[in-house]
Amino acid sequence: MKVRNLVGQRFKERPSDCVVDSHALMVRGGYMKYVGSGIFSEFPVLRRVTKKIENIIREEMDAIDGQEVLFPVVMPAELWEESGRYDSIASELVRFNDRNKARMVLGMTHEEAAVQLVREFGQSYQQYPFMIYQIQRKFRDEARPRAGMIRVREFTMKDAYSFHTSQEDLEEYYQRCYDAYNRVFARAGVPEVVTVASDSGMMGGSVSHEYMLLNEIGEDSIVLCEDCDYSANMEAAQNIVENNFDIPVAEITEVHTPDKKTMEEVCEYLNADLKLSCKAVVYQKNADDKFVVAFTRGDFEVNETKLRNLVGEEIHPAVIDEESPVIAGFIGPVGLSKDVEVYYDLSLKGIPALVAGANKVDYHFTGVNLERDVEGVVYQDIAKVVEDGICPKCGKHSLTIKRGIEVGNIFQLGTRYTESMGMTYTDKDGVVHNPIMGCYGIGVGRLAASVCEAKHDDYGPIWPISIAPWEVHLCCLRADDEQTKAVADEMYAKLKAAGAEVIYDDRAGIRPGEMFADADLLGVPIRVVVSPRNLKENKIEISTRDKSVKDSVDMENALEYVLNLKKEMFDALNK
Amino acid sequence: MKVRNLVGQRFKERPSDCVVDSHALMVRGGYMKYVGSGIFSEFPVLRRVTKKIENIIREEMDAIDGQEVLFPVVMPAELWEESGRYDSIASELVRFNDRNKARMVLGMTHEEAAVQLVREFGQSYQQYPFMIYQIQRKFRDEARPRAGMIRVREFTMKDAYSFHTSQEDLEEYYQRCYDAYNRVFARAGVPEVVTVASDSGMMGGSVSHEYMLLNEIGEDSIVLCEDCDYSANMEAAQNIVENNFDIPVAEITEVHTPDKKTMEEVCEYLNADLKLSCKAVVYQKNADDKFVVAFTRGDFEVNETKLRNLVGEEIHPAVIDEESPVIAGFIGPVGLSKDVEVYYDLSLKGIPALVAGANKVDYHFTGVNLERDVEGVVYQDIAKVVEDGICPKCGKHSLTIKRGIEVGNIFQLGTRYTESMGMTYTDKDGVVHNPIMGCYGIGVGRLAASVCEAKHDDYGPIWPISIAPWEVHLCCLRADDEQTKAVADEMYAKLKAAGAEVIYDDRAGIRPGEMFADADLLGVPIRVVVSPRNLKENKIEISTRDKSVKDSVDMENALEYVLNLKKEMFDALNK
Repeated sequence: MKVRNLVGQRFKERPSDCVVDSHALMVRGGYMKYVGSGIFSEFPVLRRVTKKIENIIREEMDAIDGQEVLFPVVMPAELWEESGRYDSIASELVRFNDRNKARMVLGMTHEEAAVQLVREFGQSYQQYPFMIYQIQRKFRDEARPRAGMIRVREFTMKDAYSFHTSQEDLEEYYQRCYDAYNRVFARAGVPEVVTVASDSGMMGGSVSHEYMLLNEIGEDSIVLCEDCDYSANMEAAQNIVENNFDIPVAEITEVHTPDKKTMEEVCEYLNADLKLSCKAVVYQKNADDKFVVAFTRGDFEVNETKLRNLVGEEIHPAVIDEESPVIAGFIGPVGLSKDVEVYYDLSLKGIPALVAGANKVDYHFTGVNLERDVEGVVYQDIAKVVEDGICPKCGKHSLTIKRGIEVGNIFQLGTRYTESMGMTYTDKDGVVHNPIMGCYGIGVGRLAASVCEAKHDDYGPIWPISIAPWEVHLCCLRADDEQTKAVADEMYAKLKAAGAEVIYDDRAGIRPGEMFADADLLGVPIRVVVSPRNLKENKIEISTRDKSVKDSVDMENALEYVLNLKKEMFDALNK
Repeated sequence: MKVRNLVGQRFKERPSDCVVDSHALMVRGGYMKYVGSGIFSEFPVLRRVTKKIENIIREEMDAIDGQEVLFPVVMPAELWEESGRYDSIASELVRFNDRNKARMVLGMTHEEAAVQLVREFGQSYQQYPFMIYQIQRKFRDEARPRAGMIRVREFTMKDAYSFHTSQEDLEEYYQRCYDAYNRVFARAGVPEVVTVASDSGMMGGSVSHEYMLLNEIGEDSIVLCEDCDYSANMEAAQNIVENNFDIPVAEITEVHTPDKKTMEEVCEYLNADLKLSCKAVVYQKNADDKFVVAFTRGDFEVNETKLRNLVGEEIHPAVIDEESPVIAGFIGPVGLSKDVEVYYDLSLKGIPALVAGANKVDYHFTGVNLERDVEGVVYQDIAKVVEDGICPKCGKHSLTIKRGIEVGNIFQLGTRYTESMGMTYTDKDGVVHNPIMGCYGIGVGRLAASVCEAKHDDYGPIWPISIAPWEVHLCCLRADDEQTKAVADEMYAKLKAAGAEVIYDDRAGIRPGEMFADADLLGVPIRVVVSPRNLKENKIEISTRDKSVKDSVDMENALEYVLNLKKEMFDALNK
């Protein structure tokens, strides 16, 4: 392929609407084109990258006995009603009526389709285990698409579904897939991706992991231990709090706290320690607007996902008015309306005397002792882990919080879908069971953008050779010079004949600076430059996009040099 | 891959809801699963077939300098409003609102997305010509999905778009694509696909061709000349009629034809020749319900597409009531209401005296002479070609009409989209033009099903080796016999090591009949059978699915024999 024929334009200026570097570079480099909010077309350069990622994933899925299938993008609503998700998923699920007024959905994930496909096939235990996967477009109507290809509404995803007759078998396969995912990320050039325990969210199931590429533009918070190998995302990270406050139990006392509504304001006003206060955060259930109050120690934050999992249904931040059973700014555990569902965080346990709302306008209590003053209090983990928090694995105060981009996830689903959708098999003894499922996803476009985010400089992406649009970028400086052009043409032919993927820039009348700027934006790992100056010394210049190599090589050795470099680069990724 | 692990069940009974053979066999063989009307999932067997078809197409598109891109399935309505198709396409185009009430559509074709992608890139003449293509899912809300994968609502399609600065350049590229398509179909095992001139329909543009696999289950009528190479689909086939009726001109005479409403009834009643009658067919314009009457010779049928193209807008069969400006059953050219738009077919030209409606209940005219009795009559081609009609190319009465499945199409679009969407380039002299487009489609799933329809027997598909799910089907009869199993296992290993794609049936306790029935359904071209009986004579049985080869081969020669067979099969497709 010649640069002169490549569809997609490159330009210098960073587009003002691109917040993250990968987005800006992929727009500037002619990789992607905005079509609508969270919707992009892929230019040929990006399509070459995503096809390579797809093939790496395909190979690794085949290697763990996956069988490729294809589910539809558009599905009848009935299929999603079988699992209950037609009603339980909010507006991310696109619903529409077809020409016959039949209700349809756009696939944002395919658990239902997977179960529907194999429900008849999997009726005997002898068929198990098996795994099916697809690489297919999905549409998820995200509220806030962002960061270019990182969070979009339409995306290509590899989603895999495994089926098992025992938890042990699922766990064994889950481990194989866990390892396969690590191979995918290593082969794609980001072996530094970390695995974190995660919350399963709307997928159902219990054990799950996310593959995170640590990066400050990531929207996920990851909890890592600096002393051991513990890792989890914020939703799944257990928050451990040790309360050893050497203070006396006190009498509960109502104090006037006019207009002091946040616990920080109250504690400052009362000259009290925020750690000895009980903060309220109020939600409502989506289904019936019932109020849910979560109490934490004043210096902790509620993790909404943890709370949602305890509540067992969808919740949203409360809208409090005069009719509400709570008084905004003055909510506390003592004297709270019985119409409210209450949760206490572990961080409140063992504190002899707390400052807390008095459920009365402009009043708080001091001296609240939960064990004494509230009947049947139960402490649960609903708060977010904090920097320097206690590691659940090694017990040290060694937790740190980083940002990460989720590039993959794996779930142990259990029988969540097979049960609701009536998929059963008969075991050896004629007993009927629901098979146990796992599911495993990787977003193709997001992985491409994440690699770009992790591997770039100011001038463009620095693609790992395995997913680079081409392996070699051949520049002919002064293509108007007959001899130079002849040498470069020959090099092009030789490289292609030797099986290298080459993009060749033989544009005449282009300044070297412009040619190199284009090459930087294409981010091809190996660069070969043929120029009149080098040719005088019978040399060809060979360098790498990451600047680790820059060599002037004798012309007769150039081809071999490039092929060796290519091999080394692949070996480094596959080791 | 082993049959025992293959996901997808096979069964004997023809499903009652399958009308065509390919559908029945692909359901029975575990290829596809019904999800909703015109919506299917692909089991691993079919996915292997469709991937191979996709790769053949990809190679041929790359070979004519196509660059692969990817457009979204979901697009904003605004994009389709730019071209005017948001309003002009009826309910096949799925429209819905996203969570923010933005109007969206599902891509059923991607001309708009193609122009949007390259609108900025293609601003200079120096960028031309170029071609981009994608292989992507589409959703078209067909009124009548039918015949399994032949006519579905959701499908994978390769769609390509080329851009040019002159009609000559388009035509040159069009020819390259025309040839590439023939290579695709030849490589996919259906070199017998014929190319027919076609009507461009809603795509706009003028010249277009369809690739037709002649088959009685096809829903398209194709006009072929039995004497020359003329071919066209019914919509595009020119209808030539030579009228040499040696009858006198007569006076126009009103005759009583009580309750005789069809021209057949009238002519029978009047003892007149149907060929000397003028039949009316009535439509209404979709936009304003205005009446449109098409007159043809009594023995011809109106082709609705030809008429629609002349009218220049969408029409539908008329609903006639007492308010209408026409009287059902008695419509004729003389005395017809001025509120009606009238078209005359060429078949009426040169007939001295016609029977025709008198626009009066229970009356017809005889002796109608259109040139004499109707002012400014213009004859146009609006009728369907008939069997033994006159070939527009060689002039003989040699036309025949066949059924065909459309497996691909190519269009010269002109500036239909670039003009409406404001895509321009500046030429050498600084003059601004709209680029000229071509577009080129192949449905992947439909091609798979069409090949199956063309190549099957009662027991299953007979896949061409290029798109077969596997190349070799290895059967171990009596896998419970240790020696037989060992030989078969070794054969499996050797075949795989030699690069053959093998499906291996080593199920014990399966009757040979059942094993062969499964193999027939999988339709793999080369079959290798290892059995105790053959082994006694040191033989392995090798046959082909199409029954052209059935041989007992010495064990030591078996591998080479299979590999040769494979090579021959591929050579036959690539020649």
